[in-house]
Amino acid sequence: MKTFHDCIPCLMRQTIQAVKQISDDEQLIERVLRSALFLASKMDYSKTPALIGREIHALIRKETINNDPYAEIKHKANEIALAIAPAIREEITTCDNPLQMAIRFAIAGNILDFALYNGWDDKRFQESLHSSRTKSIDKKQLDRLQAEIEKADNILILGDNAGETVFDRLLIEQIMPKQITYAVKGYPVINDALREDAIFAGIDKFAKIIDTGMDCAGTLLSMCSRVFLDIFYNADLVIAKGQANYETLCDSQRQVFFLTQIKCDVIAQDLNGNVGDWIIASTQ
Amino acid sequence: MKTFHDCIPCLMRQTIQAVKQISDDEQLIERVLRSALFLASKMDYSKTPALIGREIHALIRKETINNDPYAEIKHKANEIALAIAPAIREEITTCDNPLQMAIRFAIAGNILDFALYNGWDDKRFQESLHSSRTKSIDKKQLDRLQAEIEKADNILILGDNAGETVFDRLLIEQIMPKQITYAVKGYPVINDALREDAIFAGIDKFAKIIDTGMDCAGTLLSMCSRVFLDIFYNADLVIAKGQANYETLCDSQRQVFFLTQIKCDVIAQDLNGNVGDWIIASTQ
Repeated sequence: MKTFHDCIPCLMRQTIQAVKQISDDEQLIERVLRSALFLASKMDYSKTPALIGREIHALIRKETINNDPYAEIKHKANEIALAIAPAIREEITTCDNPLQMAIRFAIAGNILDFALYNGWDDKRFQESLHSSRTKSIDKKQLDRLQAEIEKADNILILGDNAGETVFDRLLIEQIMPKQITYAVKGYPVINDALREDAIFAGIDKFAKIIDTGMDCAGTLLSMCSRVFLDIFYNADLVIAKGQANYETLCDSQRQVFFLTQIKCDVIAQDLNGNVGDWIIASTQ
Repeated sequence: MKTFHDCIPCLMRQTIQAVKQISDDEQLIERVLRSALFLASKMDYSKTPALIGREIHALIRKETINNDPYAEIKHKANEIALAIAPAIREEITTCDNPLQMAIRFAIAGNILDFALYNGWDDKRFQESLHSSRTKSIDKKQLDRLQAEIEKADNILILGDNAGETVFDRLLIEQIMPKQITYAVKGYPVINDALREDAIFAGIDKFAKIIDTGMDCAGTLLSMCSRVFLDIFYNADLVIAKGQANYETLCDSQRQVFFLTQIKCDVIAQDLNGNVGDWIIASTQ
């Protein structure tokens, strides 16, 4: 997917918010914002938003001399998600269809996305959790994904945000026993999960953790490591979480199932839905 | 009020939306967006958002060779507001306190603001109208404004958007007979009302129409005409509609009553409210 014009103001907003994560120095925020505006004025918009965002976030890291501006908020998301995990597990395991309920919570957890919202929004998070039981979702796709999961021997899950990883672990618990690989980013980018976040969520007890080798949101196959690509193309089933994975893999040659919430008008238009919708989609 | 960093992405969004009003030429949209990003990277943010916006919108007009990109949407807003005016007038005149109900509808009409929302949103407009009867509003300020209106002999109303002018006319009808002056912008800027919009709403039948002399949202006193300033400082009461008037006049030395909806986080923070709140505020 190419970068839409509407993505640019959103990236400028992300820039301000990223610097605010680590500093309230107005002069620093202004300097980085000005640099990002200048950079955005001459970027190649035919690239995917993830690549454009990569350049912007590299600039932020360089100008703030901070390798991981979202470290604190990722930690907070991990802590909050882990604290509520036992109650959600109880709800999943005692319902009629635990796997489908775990899929629902895995989509609910995709709200833990601080790239798009300004800081922690507890109300929005609680609403998302609450919606897990009843939120309208494509039942055919849900049944289809359940069948694909049950049929597959080895499954690759492409993670998205820190904190969301805890919900992915609860899904993995329902998928077990299978050969599962869980992919995180190779380097810090926005609030995307790193290896340490997956381990914090306890995913290492159930799955092999790999990284994409990238410092870019989503999964840009042209930039991924050979090890990652080998697993990607040989998995029986690939489940990709979040918008950035959709943006980067929606044109993929292999089948990928996407679990995400729609968080902006650009993706809403592409998926023929509305902001706030919960999506199970697949490339084929 | 100075320009906050968060105003800049919002102005970039406005840029895209302004060009889309007159063209779906992706190359034109991209060229103007790039120019706006470059311009914003070197602007003086200590200026008020209205002045920063003025520079951006001047650039848009120049690059699109179009003096009034919002002409069509202003026309649409005028038509829609005028069509529902008889029903609203009926509701105002038959209620317990027609003046207070007219003030409520004047705030409801402030939703006709296409600078902040993308294109026409009928649902949002209908919701705003529906809220007029019950929306939470500072009752003390409402009573105070009513008393000030009843006490004043000559009143200046600073208009905001086209379409909203129709609601301002309904308010003026309840204020009559008084000496009323209604101020519009001197030149096209975003969807702000011009003399022709005030006349379309029939305001000329009840009030003297003047313009600020500016091509800038809000009312920047340092740029207004001498004729305007004379009326501004000598009116018994000044009622200013919309956020931009609040941004430019909140530090004014004379008393000004503001009627607006809160449409962004920056103003929400300044007014200690939330996006969506209806505000009656005054400088003193």
